Amino acid sequence: MFDNKETTGINHLGEFGLIDHLTKNIELKQPGTLKGIGDDAAVLDFTGKKTLISTDMLLEGIHFDLAYTPFKHLGYKAIQVNLSDVYAMNATPSQVTVSIGVSSKFPLEAIEELYQGIYVACEKYNVDLVGGDTSASKQGLIISVTVLGYADEADIVYRNTAQEGDLICVSGDLGGAYTGLQLLEREKLVYLENPNIQPDLEGKDYIVERQLKPEARKDIVELLKAWSVTPTAMIDVSDGLASEVLHICTQSNKGCNLYEEKIPIDPMTYETAREFNLDPTICALSGGEDYELLFTIKQADYDKLKNHPDISIIGHITEASAGRNLITKAGAVHELKAQGWNAFKNSQG
Amino acid sequence: MFDNKETTGINHLGEFGLIDHLTKNIELKQPGTLKGIGDDAAVLDFTGKKTLISTDMLLEGIHFDLAYTPFKHLGYKAIQVNLSDVYAMNATPSQVTVSIGVSSKFPLEAIEELYQGIYVACEKYNVDLVGGDTSASKQGLIISVTVLGYADEADIVYRNTAQEGDLICVSGDLGGAYTGLQLLEREKLVYLENPNIQPDLEGKDYIVERQLKPEARKDIVELLKAWSVTPTAMIDVSDGLASEVLHICTQSNKGCNLYEEKIPIDPMTYETAREFNLDPTICALSGGEDYELLFTIKQADYDKLKNHPDISIIGHITEASAGRNLITKAGAVHELKAQGWNAFKNSQG
Repeated sequence: MFDNKETTGINHLGEFGLIDHLTKNIELKQPGTLKGIGDDAAVLDFTGKKTLISTDMLLEGIHFDLAYTPFKHLGYKAIQVNLSDVYAMNATPSQVTVSIGVSSKFPLEAIEELYQGIYVACEKYNVDLVGGDTSASKQGLIISVTVLGYADEADIVYRNTAQEGDLICVSGDLGGAYTGLQLLEREKLVYLENPNIQPDLEGKDYIVERQLKPEARKDIVELLKAWSVTPTAMIDVSDGLASEVLHICTQSNKGCNLYEEKIPIDPMTYETAREFNLDPTICALSGGEDYELLFTIKQADYDKLKNHPDISIIGHITEASAGRNLITKAGAVHELKAQGWNAFKNSQG
Repeated sequence: MFDNKETTGINHLGEFGLIDHLTKNIELKQPGTLKGIGDDAAVLDFTGKKTLISTDMLLEGIHFDLAYTPFKHLGYKAIQVNLSDVYAMNATPSQVTVSIGVSSKFPLEAIEELYQGIYVACEKYNVDLVGGDTSASKQGLIISVTVLGYADEADIVYRNTAQEGDLICVSGDLGGAYTGLQLLEREKLVYLENPNIQPDLEGKDYIVERQLKPEARKDIVELLKAWSVTPTAMIDVSDGLASEVLHICTQSNKGCNLYEEKIPIDPMTYETAREFNLDPTICALSGGEDYELLFTIKQADYDKLKNHPDISIIGHITEASAGRNLITKAGAVHELKAQGWNAFKNSQG
């Protein structure tokens, strides 16, 4: 991707410093950011609000593969997965810190592209980059992001407050990021076998983008606010629908009935899953990385949401003793189980 | 260090999850921590205060060497280097998040020891662990810490507010962490050549501990408060005295006179530097990782500090045009230059 003759070695930045170089053009926008990068710590003002904090680390070879991940997309995604955690609390993200570890194999231009993606995401979601740490890495690329946000205490929505009878809702559609990943992995193998064959991703833009460039659902949080709907519980879908529904049930000490036929799956996701001999429902339940919002609402709010094309009502909360059930299209009742894409990864977010 | 027969593989924790296992006994102590680990984000209350945030990442092979770094010390140090950044703002740290990347080569017991060190530091400094992310790593051990703190706005001390005539002060002594590192590196080489030879660190506890288990200078911040001394500028010594003095001068647009004979160096540091044919003053100026506080005060505050054994007055601030000068013991005047231990590393903190 980067021609060595035209690139700049990171080691040659000298005392000017990589982080100075990458952050010199930052414009702070949040009124709560009193001091950004440039001192021992940033100084922020959350007067009158509660402060939210969440953090996520992305590691090369575990969370991303540079064989098919553009640096700019990667920077964008690193921010989105963190913003998503703040929206999942029904709050507004306001600042991020970004620490990166970079091996000297990367040219400066690659890291600049990474930061371009970070800045595009910050700009679009109106958050300030206020701190970070840049270090050499002996291994691969490491990106650690921490996000801060704010909310009125009464507006904050936790995972453990779902009530019996509440409706289970999810935004957007599910399984796309996972099937997009299958596609990218396949084309990578084809390329490794024969570098002259161009990747065949034609017509698959949507699911490839779901994997490489997810969007945190700021719009859904704003929509709910505009409708005066406060979810009774909320979580973002990072590890797969099943895992997230179970988090809400376990932490709320409740059960659920989830209806397979109601789970929103895009036709392209469906078709691609079939191409790979995968069950599209399993992709939605266990695929992860969709960064949609899963939330529960009171039945009284049903009419406000029922006709919105981007919100699906997929089940309801029951008493704990009724169990956590998936009702299949054929009407069979199965116990809902989590099978995340990476059992070892287990984050707060 | 860990006998494989008695250890537990990280991969076998199953859906219980590594982070749950490591954080299940947390007791929150800060009244401002409304919700800690267990949701998409932690919820904090900074009512009436400004919020400080800083972040630092430690990478195996770059910032630490597991050949001679006990996991417990490493966890402790990862917290201290972050707390130090908040104290350097004259503020009080209150919460941390910790993300780790761990390769499966580590037994669970190693990671538990790492967290023991983290918890000991949190307990001692009264900060809550409120979030984090745990992931598999294909490479080595990665630790990313973000710290939050608070202060009244009027108490916050920046780097860019030193005034002409202010006295330059530093806590503790300098160069110890660097000479301790030289010692540990030498004993590692001896061990690699002949594993039957035990490391010879006798009588060197102080400088070894300076390297492996630094302490953030909470006591100095409290002392200054008790004396009603607000520094005019402050920074912590992470990259070496010269680098930090230059940060204050550059950001304040001032010059300085720094007196070599006033730079506090412990006798053990001095002696060990000489053993390695190193100039002790260079170790203090460029060694880094001492995590002492460098600050400037008004001359009117001189009498309050002058007799304290743990604070040294090492120079004064001048107008910018006078330059940044190091006056040697022989009376020669040199331009002060930064030669940090790792030119590529350049952090906010």
